[in-house]
Amino acid sequence: MANKDVTDPVRMEKIVSLCKRRGFIFQAGELYGGLNGCWDYGPLGAELKRNLKDYWWRKTVQERDDVLGMDGAILTMEEVLKSSGHIGGFSDPMVDCKTCKGRFRADSLESFECKEKPSVCPGASPKCELTEPRDFNLMLQTNFGATGEQIAYLRPETAQSIFCQYKNVLDSNRVKLPFGIAQIGKSFRNEINPRNYIFRSREFEQMEIEYFCRPEDGLRLTDEWLETRLCFYAEIGIPREKLHILDIPDGERAFYSQKTYDIEYEFPFGIQELEGVAYRTDYDLGVHAKGSGRPLEYFDEETKERFLPHVVEPSAGCDRTVLALLCEAFDEEELGSDGKSDIRTVMRFMPSMAPIKVAVFPLLKKNEEQVRIAREIQKALQPWMNVFYDDGGAVGRRYRRQDEVGTPFCLTVDFETLGEEDPALKGTVTVRHRDSMEQERLPVEELLPWLLARVR
Amino acid sequence: MANKDVTDPVRMEKIVSLCKRRGFIFQAGELYGGLNGCWDYGPLGAELKRNLKDYWWRKTVQERDDVLGMDGAILTMEEVLKSSGHIGGFSDPMVDCKTCKGRFRADSLESFECKEKPSVCPGASPKCELTEPRDFNLMLQTNFGATGEQIAYLRPETAQSIFCQYKNVLDSNRVKLPFGIAQIGKSFRNEINPRNYIFRSREFEQMEIEYFCRPEDGLRLTDEWLETRLCFYAEIGIPREKLHILDIPDGERAFYSQKTYDIEYEFPFGIQELEGVAYRTDYDLGVHAKGSGRPLEYFDEETKERFLPHVVEPSAGCDRTVLALLCEAFDEEELGSDGKSDIRTVMRFMPSMAPIKVAVFPLLKKNEEQVRIAREIQKALQPWMNVFYDDGGAVGRRYRRQDEVGTPFCLTVDFETLGEEDPALKGTVTVRHRDSMEQERLPVEELLPWLLARVR
Repeated sequence: MANKDVTDPVRMEKIVSLCKRRGFIFQAGELYGGLNGCWDYGPLGAELKRNLKDYWWRKTVQERDDVLGMDGAILTMEEVLKSSGHIGGFSDPMVDCKTCKGRFRADSLESFECKEKPSVCPGASPKCELTEPRDFNLMLQTNFGATGEQIAYLRPETAQSIFCQYKNVLDSNRVKLPFGIAQIGKSFRNEINPRNYIFRSREFEQMEIEYFCRPEDGLRLTDEWLETRLCFYAEIGIPREKLHILDIPDGERAFYSQKTYDIEYEFPFGIQELEGVAYRTDYDLGVHAKGSGRPLEYFDEETKERFLPHVVEPSAGCDRTVLALLCEAFDEEELGSDGKSDIRTVMRFMPSMAPIKVAVFPLLKKNEEQVRIAREIQKALQPWMNVFYDDGGAVGRRYRRQDEVGTPFCLTVDFETLGEEDPALKGTVTVRHRDSMEQERLPVEELLPWLLARVR
Repeated sequence: MANKDVTDPVRMEKIVSLCKRRGFIFQAGELYGGLNGCWDYGPLGAELKRNLKDYWWRKTVQERDDVLGMDGAILTMEEVLKSSGHIGGFSDPMVDCKTCKGRFRADSLESFECKEKPSVCPGASPKCELTEPRDFNLMLQTNFGATGEQIAYLRPETAQSIFCQYKNVLDSNRVKLPFGIAQIGKSFRNEINPRNYIFRSREFEQMEIEYFCRPEDGLRLTDEWLETRLCFYAEIGIPREKLHILDIPDGERAFYSQKTYDIEYEFPFGIQELEGVAYRTDYDLGVHAKGSGRPLEYFDEETKERFLPHVVEPSAGCDRTVLALLCEAFDEEELGSDGKSDIRTVMRFMPSMAPIKVAVFPLLKKNEEQVRIAREIQKALQPWMNVFYDDGGAVGRRYRRQDEVGTPFCLTVDFETLGEEDPALKGTVTVRHRDSMEQERLPVEELLPWLLARVR
C-alpha cells in the first residue's frame, strides 16, 4: 500500500463506527447537529490520548537531561504572530465559485469531491465560475478586554510560545546548548475542508519540541531527531515499514528551512503526514528578537561567543497519532470453524497505549467468593493502572468486548481460584492474552508486578 | 488568618518572584509586553500542574468504578450555549466611567484599587462620572468557515461538553446511575479585571465532574462529594484547617441549584474560592433536551422508570489549586547561628506534587567514579520519576537550590559510596531530606523502591 492513492474506505468506516460505538470519539456538539472539524474524546479515547501524551512526555522530557517542558497559553498576542509571520503569511490560496458561492482550496481542486454540493463540484461543472486564487488567513481571532478592544488569536501552533519564553527558560534553568523545550497543547486553524475524521480538524493537539543548538550542529541534529522520532513511533506500535520519510527538496521547504523531513503514515485514506522534523535555522529567534527589540542571543561561557541559537523542530500531531494508533490496531480475525463464520474484532494496541490495561472477571456473578476475590484484585491494581470490572454474561463474550477496545489482559477468578478443582491451583487466576487468546495461570500475589512489567 | 480581609502582600510578592526566577510561571507574551490575564507555565510549573492533574485523574477516574473520563473540544456551538443560558445570561454588571473611559465591575467598585489609572479610581474621584450598570457578556467569540460565516465560542466551562455527550457516554459504556463523567481542560472568560496572579485569568484550566444520579440521592451525594473533595485537598497538601466551606444560602445560589458549597482557601491575598460543589438538579439535561429536541432520559431497568437524572457538580480550578499548592508550600526558615542570619527558602510540596522528585549529586565533579555512579543512579530512576542531576558548586548550595523548588530528596554519591572511608558503607549514598534536612544512608539498589513508596 505504498501508493498514496491506495485507500480503504471500508476499513476506515469500520474504525469510525467502532470509535463511536465504544466511546473513543464523538463529534463535538453532535446533539445539536455537530460542529464541523471539532471532536470530543469519549472515555476510551481520552485514555488512549492520555497514554500517548504521557509516553511522549516521559520519553521527551522526563528521561532526557537536555529537554525541559512548558505549558503555554492558547491566547496569543497579535505582536507575536506578526513577528512569526503568521499574520500576513499564514494563509491558503482559495478560490470562490460565483455560481454556488462556495470557497475551496485552490491547491486541491483536482482531487476535491464536493459531497455537500454534489451538483456543483468546483471546476467540474460547466456552470462553475471560479475566481482567481486569493489568500485566506487560517487563524482564529477573538476579542477581549472591557470594551472588546483587544485582539488575540488562538495559537496556530504551540511553537511560538516556546520561542517567546526561550529566554525566560534559559535564565531560570542554567541550561547549556544544545537543549530543547517541549510542549503539548491545543492549536487552532480555520481549515476550509476539515476531513478524514480527526486527521484534519480545526482544533487539534500538538506535541512539539524546539531544540536549540549551535549553528554548525543543526543538520546533524535534524537527522538525529528524525531517528529518535522514528524509534518513538515503533515503541508505541507504529512500525517503521508503515512510515514514509519525505526529504523535502530545495524550493519546496519553507524559505528559512535548511532541511525538512515529513514522517508519513499509511492511513486507510492514503499516506499522510504525522510529523515534521524541520531545521529552522535561527529564523524564529531572529524574527522575535527583531520584533520585540530584545536581545535573544545565547552567551557561550566556554568560547565567549554570543549568537542566536539555531533550532530543530520535531512537531507531531497528537490527534493524527491517535488516529494512526487506532488504524494500526484495528483488526478483524476469522475464527470460524466447521463452516461457521465468526469474526473477532480486536484492537491490537501496544499494552502501553491500551486505554484499559486489564479486565477482571468473576467466572460466575452469583458466586460470592469469586466476586469478592475479583473485587479485591481490582482494588489492588487500580492505583497502578486502568482496570475494568465486568461480571455480565458469558466469559467468552466478556473477552470479546475487551478485544474490541484493545484490553491486552483479562483475569478470570474461577473455581480453580477457590481451590475447588485442584488444591495446587488455589489462589491462581486465569490470565487470557488478547492477541494470541492463549491462557495461563498466575498466582494472585504475582499479578501486580507481572502486569507492571508489561503495561507501562 | 480566618478573616477575609487579612492579606500578606509581602509573602505573595516573594512567591511570585520565586516562580519567575526558578521557572514555574511566566507571563504570556512577556517578550512583547505581556498579555494581561494569560500565563505560561515554565518547566517546573508545567510539572507541578501535571502532577496535580494526574493525581486528580487517578483519584477521580482511574480508581473509581463509577466515573468515566472525557476530553472535549474548546470550540463550542452557539446552540449549546444558548440552551445552557450562557448566551443571554452569562454576564457581569459593568459601569463605564465617562471621564477616564474605563469599564469596571459594578459589584466590586468599593474594593477596587485602580493601579493603572491612579488618578481616576472609579467613584473615588469627584471627576468620576459613572454610568448605570450594564450587562457585559463574559464569553470569547470567534468565527470560522470559508467565509468566516460560522460563530463559535471558546467554552466558558468544561461542563457543557459533558452534558452534550452524556447520552453518547451512557450508550457506549453500559453504565448505571449513579455515575459521573470527569474532564480536565481549558476554559476562557473575558474577565474585566484579571488579578491575583494566576488566580483569576482569562484562560484557565478546570477539573470538573458531573455526577448523574436519581433525584432522591442528589442532596446526600452533594455532601458526600464535598467530603471526597476535602480529602483530596488534604492528600495533595492543602490541610483542612486552611479551607473554609461556605454553604451558600437560599437566594444566593443559582436559581436551579438546591445546594451549593464553596470550598475556599486562605490565599495571601485573602480567602478565595478553589472549588464549588453544586447540586444542579436536572436543570442542565433539561435545557439541552429542550434545546436540541432530543430525549435525554435515563431508563432504569430495575424500576422500569424513565426520567432525567439529577446532577452533582464538583468543579475545581486547576490553576487556582496550583497557586494554593505554591502558597501552602512556600516557607522561609531562619537557620542562622552565632548571630549570623541565614534564611532558607523551601517549597514544602508533598512529594507527590513536587516537580522534581529527587536530585542526584556526585560530591566532587572531578571524581570520575562518583560521577559515573551518580549518572547510573539518575538513569535507573529516570523512567519512573523526574530526576535532576547537578554537579555544580558546593553540595550545601546544591541542597539549597533544590529546597527552593521543593525537591523532597537529594542523593549524594560521596567517598563512602566508593568504600574509601568505611568498607561497610560501600555502595550506599547519602539521602538528604528536604524538610528536616536530616541525612541517612541507603544502599543504591534500594533507592528505587524506597523512592517509589514516597513520591507517588
